[in-house]
Amino acid sequence: MTTIEERSTPKAGYKVVGSRPIRHDGVDKVTGRAQYGADINLPGTLHGKILRSPHGHARIVSIDTSKAEALPDVKAVVTGADVPIVQDMMIDFGETMGNARLLAENCLAQEKTLYKGHAVAAVAASNPHVAEEALDLIEVVYEPLPVILNALDAMRDDAPLLHDAMTTRSIAERFTRGDDTGVHSNVASHLQFKRGDLDEGFAKADVIVEREFTTSTVHQGYIEPHTSTARWDPDGHVTIWTSTQGAFGIRGQAAAILGVPEGKVTVIPMEIGGGFGAKTYVHVDPVAALLSKKSGAPVKVTMSRTEVFEASGPTSATTIRAKIGTTSEGDITAAELWMAYEAGAFPGSPVGAGASTALAPYDIEHLVVDGYDVVVNKPKVGAYRAPGSPQAAFAVESVMDELAEKIGMEPMDFRLKNATKEGDRMPNGMPFPTVGCVEVENAIVNHPHFSAPIEGPNRGRGVAMGFWFNGGNQSSATVTVNADGTIALVTGSVDIGGMRAVLAMQAAETLGLSVDEVQPTVGDTDSIGWTGVTGGSRTAFSTGIATITASEDVKRQMTERAAILLEAEDPDAVSFEDGVFSAGDKQITWKEVAGKQLRTGGPISASASSNPTRVGPAFAGNIVDVEVDPETGKVDILRFTAIQDAGTAIHPSYVEGQMQGGAVQGIGWALSEEYVWQEDGAMSNASFLDYRMPTSLDLPMIDTEIIEVPNPGHPYGIRGVGEVPIVPPMAAIANAIHDATGVRMTHLPMSPGNVLEALGAVEPED
Amino acid sequence: MTTIEERSTPKAGYKVVGSRPIRHDGVDKVTGRAQYGADINLPGTLHGKILRSPHGHARIVSIDTSKAEALPDVKAVVTGADVPIVQDMMIDFGETMGNARLLAENCLAQEKTLYKGHAVAAVAASNPHVAEEALDLIEVVYEPLPVILNALDAMRDDAPLLHDAMTTRSIAERFTRGDDTGVHSNVASHLQFKRGDLDEGFAKADVIVEREFTTSTVHQGYIEPHTSTARWDPDGHVTIWTSTQGAFGIRGQAAAILGVPEGKVTVIPMEIGGGFGAKTYVHVDPVAALLSKKSGAPVKVTMSRTEVFEASGPTSATTIRAKIGTTSEGDITAAELWMAYEAGAFPGSPVGAGASTALAPYDIEHLVVDGYDVVVNKPKVGAYRAPGSPQAAFAVESVMDELAEKIGMEPMDFRLKNATKEGDRMPNGMPFPTVGCVEVENAIVNHPHFSAPIEGPNRGRGVAMGFWFNGGNQSSATVTVNADGTIALVTGSVDIGGMRAVLAMQAAETLGLSVDEVQPTVGDTDSIGWTGVTGGSRTAFSTGIATITASEDVKRQMTERAAILLEAEDPDAVSFEDGVFSAGDKQITWKEVAGKQLRTGGPISASASSNPTRVGPAFAGNIVDVEVDPETGKVDILRFTAIQDAGTAIHPSYVEGQMQGGAVQGIGWALSEEYVWQEDGAMSNASFLDYRMPTSLDLPMIDTEIIEVPNPGHPYGIRGVGEVPIVPPMAAIANAIHDATGVRMTHLPMSPGNVLEALGAVEPED
Repeated sequence: MTTIEERSTPKAGYKVVGSRPIRHDGVDKVTGRAQYGADINLPGTLHGKILRSPHGHARIVSIDTSKAEALPDVKAVVTGADVPIVQDMMIDFGETMGNARLLAENCLAQEKTLYKGHAVAAVAASNPHVAEEALDLIEVVYEPLPVILNALDAMRDDAPLLHDAMTTRSIAERFTRGDDTGVHSNVASHLQFKRGDLDEGFAKADVIVEREFTTSTVHQGYIEPHTSTARWDPDGHVTIWTSTQGAFGIRGQAAAILGVPEGKVTVIPMEIGGGFGAKTYVHVDPVAALLSKKSGAPVKVTMSRTEVFEASGPTSATTIRAKIGTTSEGDITAAELWMAYEAGAFPGSPVGAGASTALAPYDIEHLVVDGYDVVVNKPKVGAYRAPGSPQAAFAVESVMDELAEKIGMEPMDFRLKNATKEGDRMPNGMPFPTVGCVEVENAIVNHPHFSAPIEGPNRGRGVAMGFWFNGGNQSSATVTVNADGTIALVTGSVDIGGMRAVLAMQAAETLGLSVDEVQPTVGDTDSIGWTGVTGGSRTAFSTGIATITASEDVKRQMTERAAILLEAEDPDAVSFEDGVFSAGDKQITWKEVAGKQLRTGGPISASASSNPTRVGPAFAGNIVDVEVDPETGKVDILRFTAIQDAGTAIHPSYVEGQMQGGAVQGIGWALSEEYVWQEDGAMSNASFLDYRMPTSLDLPMIDTEIIEVPNPGHPYGIRGVGEVPIVPPMAAIANAIHDATGVRMTHLPMSPGNVLEALGAVEPED
Repeated sequence: MTTIEERSTPKAGYKVVGSRPIRHDGVDKVTGRAQYGADINLPGTLHGKILRSPHGHARIVSIDTSKAEALPDVKAVVTGADVPIVQDMMIDFGETMGNARLLAENCLAQEKTLYKGHAVAAVAASNPHVAEEALDLIEVVYEPLPVILNALDAMRDDAPLLHDAMTTRSIAERFTRGDDTGVHSNVASHLQFKRGDLDEGFAKADVIVEREFTTSTVHQGYIEPHTSTARWDPDGHVTIWTSTQGAFGIRGQAAAILGVPEGKVTVIPMEIGGGFGAKTYVHVDPVAALLSKKSGAPVKVTMSRTEVFEASGPTSATTIRAKIGTTSEGDITAAELWMAYEAGAFPGSPVGAGASTALAPYDIEHLVVDGYDVVVNKPKVGAYRAPGSPQAAFAVESVMDELAEKIGMEPMDFRLKNATKEGDRMPNGMPFPTVGCVEVENAIVNHPHFSAPIEGPNRGRGVAMGFWFNGGNQSSATVTVNADGTIALVTGSVDIGGMRAVLAMQAAETLGLSVDEVQPTVGDTDSIGWTGVTGGSRTAFSTGIATITASEDVKRQMTERAAILLEAEDPDAVSFEDGVFSAGDKQITWKEVAGKQLRTGGPISASASSNPTRVGPAFAGNIVDVEVDPETGKVDILRFTAIQDAGTAIHPSYVEGQMQGGAVQGIGWALSEEYVWQEDGAMSNASFLDYRMPTSLDLPMIDTEIIEVPNPGHPYGIRGVGEVPIVPPMAAIANAIHDATGVRMTHLPMSPGNVLEALGAVEPED
C-alpha cells in the first residue's frame, strides 16, 4: 500500500508526467457548479418533447398536427416534412463517415418508423407539461409492418426489408464504403479479411473447436440523458448547447441535416455526464434546432431515461461463429470467424472493428474473418467503448480457453506461445507497431492473483485478453502565456475522465511548469480549430500531441524573448531549465520573461494541430474469480484483476479509473445487462430499475496493474486507455464459470436464468 | 444621394474593404438576444449592493456591519478591511499603468472617503431589496473633512491634502511615472513639454492672444451601467462576467486587488452597452468577487444610474490658460499652455494626452506646455473618447480663431498656413508620420457647407480642428478553417461599434473570402492571447494586424495543402486568386482544399499577435452653423459637418457612425452637459432627467465626409476613427457663437445661462 504522496510522485525522468494532481474541473464538479447540457437556460427557452413510434416497424400513412398546434402555449410542431431534403451525402464524423440522409431519418422519421421509439414528430411549448399534452393530440395513422429483431432473421432471403432501396456494399477496409453489390438486402455491408489458406491451416490442426456465440443488445448506461438546446437566429445562424463527446462532429452533422453551411452552426459542448461512445452523433440536436427555427425561440429537448434506452444508440447484439484450430503443441494453425452484428434500424454496426480486433492477440497464419452489418428493427446502434471488440473477444477468448483445455496446456501458456509481437499483422493486414501483448500476458502470469489458491465449491478462475487499436485522428490546441507566467490552454476536446488535467499535465511537462500553472479550457466550435471526438482512446494521445506542439512553439517564442532580455544575440545560445533561461552567466526566470512579453514583441500564443500517424494500440487482460450458485444460477465476482498496457500513464489515477470503469461495464454486460424485447419490438425493461447495471454492492474492488510499454509515436509515450479494459471481462468471466462448473457459456448475459439453463437445472424457455 | 448598393461597393483595389456588410452581431442585438453584462444569471446568484459615502470628503472612524449581517437572507458583508493588503504596485492596464493600491481604494474605501458616492461597504443578499435594506443597517461613523471641488483650489499651498502621503511626480513623457519631487501636494504629477525659446517666439509675434478656459466635469453617458457577476470557487479560481472594453485589463487589475495570481482569474466580457473609455478599469468587479468569496455563491453587482454618475469615471474638469502669438502674415511664432486637469479622488487625469494633442494641428517652433494632474473630491476620472484632447482643443482652437480674426485672415487659411505635415514634431517631441492634417483642412475649405450662405440674425458659422494619436498596443487573434471553407476568427477585442465585422472584413480580404464566410467571436481571457482594450482607436488597426497576420499564416498552410492536392512539388509554385489555387494547368478551389484538410495533414489554424509600431494618427475638423437665441441664451445647431481622415475606411458606415457619435457627444459637452456640484461635494443632477444629453430632437443630421490618407503602418491603411470626432465640436461651436454674437465663450458648457451671462444679458451668479 502506497501513500497518496508516494503515489503522486512523477515518473522517473519526468517532472509532471506520472503524478496524480487534482483535476482542474474537480471542485466545479463536486460542488455542483459545473454546467451540464440541461443547465443552460436562455431567456424565453421553450421545452421540446418528441412523439415516438409505438410500433417496432410501420409505414406512416398520415400525420395530423393541427390539434396540437391549436393548443395554447404550443409554439411549434415539426415532423419529418420539416427536415430539408437531405441527400445521400457522406459526412465526416471525425472518426468515421456517415450518411446524412439516414442520420436525419433517425432524428425524425420520414415514410417509415423503423423501431419502437423512433421519433415521428416534436412539439415546443412554453412548458414541458403542455408539450407532453400536445404530443397526445398529434394524430398519426400507422400501417404496421413485420418486425425483425435478430440479425439471423434479417439475413434470410425472404426477410422483409427495412430499407427498400438498400443494397449490400462490400467493405474492403475499415470505414471505407466499398462497391455496391446490387443485392437488395438487410445486410448493409459485408467485409472479409483473408490471409493464407484456411483449408491448409485446419489440416495442420490436431484440435479444432467450433462454437456459436450470441450477445444481447446492451446500453452504455451513461448517467446524463441526451439534451440539447438550440437557438436558430433570424440571420440563419444556429447555436447548439449540447451534451456531446465532440462538438465538431455535431456541428458537421447538424449542418448537413439542417441544410445550413457548417460555418453558420456553432456548437457549444457542455460538461458531459458520460458518453462511452454514444454521444458522437446527433439525436435531439436537429429536432431542437428545427423547433427553434419554427418558433423563433430557443428550444431545449432533454430525453427521459426511457427515451435514452429506446431511442439512443446502444451497441450491437451479435451472432459470432468461431472455428479455431491448434496443434497439440499449442501452435494455432487457422481461425475462421463469421460475425453478424446488428446495426439497429440504420447501417453502421461496429462489425469492422470487431472483425479487426477479434484475433489481434494471436499471430495466426491462416485466417478468414467475415463480418456482416445487418439492419433490424431496433434503435440505431452507437459506439460503445471499444466498439465491437468485446463481443468478438467473448467468442475468441472462450474458444482459446477451450483449445488450451483440450490440448492440456495452461491457457496463458497457450496464449503466450501465440502472442502478437511488433511486426505481426492484424487481421486486416496492418502491421503491429510496438505493442505490449507479451508484457501484459507475462504480467498476468506473474500476478499474485494468478497463482493464489481458490478455495470452496463452485468457484473458478478465468483469464482473457483484449485488444483495441486506440484512435489517432486530429485535434487542435492553443496555448497562451499570461503575464504571471501561467498558461491558458484551449483545446477542442470535451473533458471525459480528466482530460483537462491530462492535457494540462502535458503542457506543464513541456513548459517546465507545475500543472496548477496551466488553466485548461474546452473550446466551442468557433473558438478552437477542428478537433475529433473525445473517444476511441485518442484524446490524451492526439490532443496531447497538439498541446505539446503548441507548447513547444510557445517555448521557442519565450526563448526568443529571453534572448532579447538577456541581450543574447542568438536565441539558440539560450538554455532553459527549471524555469530559468540562461545565456552565459546571465539568467532570467520564465515568469520574468512572461511579465515582459508586451514590451519585447507582444503577446505570446501559439496554435497547433495534430495529425498523428503512429498510434499506439493497447492490450489488456483480466484475471477473475467467480462463485456460481447452483441453486439460482447467480454468478458472484469474488476477485477481479485488470492488467493493461497504457503506454506511459500520464495520470495513473485516471488510467486506473478507466481500467476499473471498463471492467465494471464489462461485468454488467457479462452478467446482467440486456434489452428484453417483446415480439412487437417493444423493450420491456426501459428503466434503470429493470435494466440491471452492477452497483457497488455487486462488485469487489477492481485491482489494477498498469504496464507501461511507451508508444514511440507520442513524445511521452501515451497509448490511450479508455476502451480496451471493457474487452476481456465477458470472456474471462465465462472462462471462470467454466472453471467453476465445467459448463461453457455461449450467450450473454450470463444471467442467473441463462446459467441455470446451461447447467441443465432448468429447461430452456423457448 | 447614393443607393445602398452603390454605397456597399468595395474600395478600388479591394474585394471587401470599403463595403458595408451587415454586422455579424446585428441580428442578435436588434432582436434582444445579445447577452449584456446583467443578462448573466448563474444558479444561486446573490445580489450585491454598495453603501456609498454621503460625504464629499471624510475620515472613516468606524464601521459596524453586525446588524446588517444579522438580517435574514444577508449572505455577506464586506468593507475595505476585506481587501487584501495591496502594495503600491504598478500594473499594466493595457494602455497605461496604474497603481493597484489606489485602484483598490477606489473600489472600497480604506481610511477615508474621498468623494460622495465612494464605496464604503457592500452587501450580498438573496434579493436586491434585502441587500438595499441591509445597507441602511451598516453603521458608519464619519469625521467630515473639507471638500475641494476645483483644481485651482486644490493646488493652493494651504489646501487640505486628499492623500497625506502623496507627493508630486514629474512626468517626463506620456504614461511614464517620473521622479518624485518630494513635495506633498494635491498635484499628483506635473509634466512639461518645451521646445525652442518661448521669449524669442513671442518677441516675433505681432499679435498675442491669451485667455483662460474652463470646462466642467462631464460623463460619457453610456446606456449600460457597470455590472459584474463574480464567482469565487473553493479552489481559488475567480470567474468574472462583466461589461468592459477589455477583459485582460480587468483580469490584471482584479488579480492584483484580490491578491490571486492572474492565471487564476477568468474574465468573460459580455456584450457592452457603451463605454467610451470608462469601462477599462474595475469598479464593481472586485466587490462582487469579495462578496462571492465570503458568501460562497456567485454575486452580481449592477450600478444604478445615480451610482454611475456619482461613482464611475467621468472625465476631467479643466482650467487651461492658452497664450499664442502670430505674425501679421499668419505665421504662429510661439505657444504657451498651462493646463490643470482634475483627476478626481485618485491620480490619473488625461492631462498628458491633452498636453500632447493640444497644438498638434500646428507646426510651432517655440512652445511650452505645462500639465498638472490634480486630485479633488470628485469621482476618479476615467477615459472618455480622445481623453483630455477635447478640453485642450476647445482652448487652442478658440484662440486660433481669435488670432486669425485679429490679423484679418480667414481662419482656415490661418490653419493651413501653419498646418502639420509628415516629419513635423508633436508637442511631446515625437515626429509625425504620414498624416492628413492638410487634406482635412482642404476638405473643409472645399466643402459646400464652408461656402454656403448663412441667412438670418444671430446666426454664425465656426470651424475647428482636432487631433488624436490613435492607439497601437497589442492584440491576439486565432483563425481556423472549417471544412466548408468558412473561417472562425477569435480575437480578444470586445465588440464596440462593429468590431466583429471590421475584423472579419480584414480576414476576408486577406483570405479572398466574403465577409459572411468569416464568423468572428470575442474570446474570454482563457481562450485567446492577451489583447488590450477596445479603445484608443486602436482595435480595427492593431487587432486587425493580428487578424491579418493569422490569416496570412492560414493562407500559407492552405497553399501547402493545395500543393499536395495539385501534386505540385513546391508550394511557391501554387498561386491563389479568386478562391482558386492553381499550379500549372491544375486548379483546386479554396473550399475543396478546406474540405480535405483532415486528409492532407490535419486541421488548419493559426494564432498571431500584433505589436504595431507605426500607428496612424488622425486629424478631424468640423464646420458648424448655430443660431443663438438672445432672449434665452439657447444655442441651436443648424448644420453640422464632420470631416475626418480615417486612413482607409474599412466599413465606411461604421466610420460615419463614429464621426456622428463623436460629434453628438461633443455637442452635448459643448452646450448642455455638466455635473452640477453642491458645496459639500454632492452632485445635484445625477440622473438622465437632469444631466442633459442631447436627444435626436436637439440635433440636425450630422453630415460626414471621410478623407482617406492610408496609414502605411497597416496593410490596408487603417488609422483608427473612434476618438478624434469628439475633439473639434466644442471649439467649432464656440467659434460659431462668436461669429453669431461677437462674444467669445470660454467656459463649458455653453448652456443658456452661461451664454446669456456672456452676452451681458444677466449678471454672473456667483
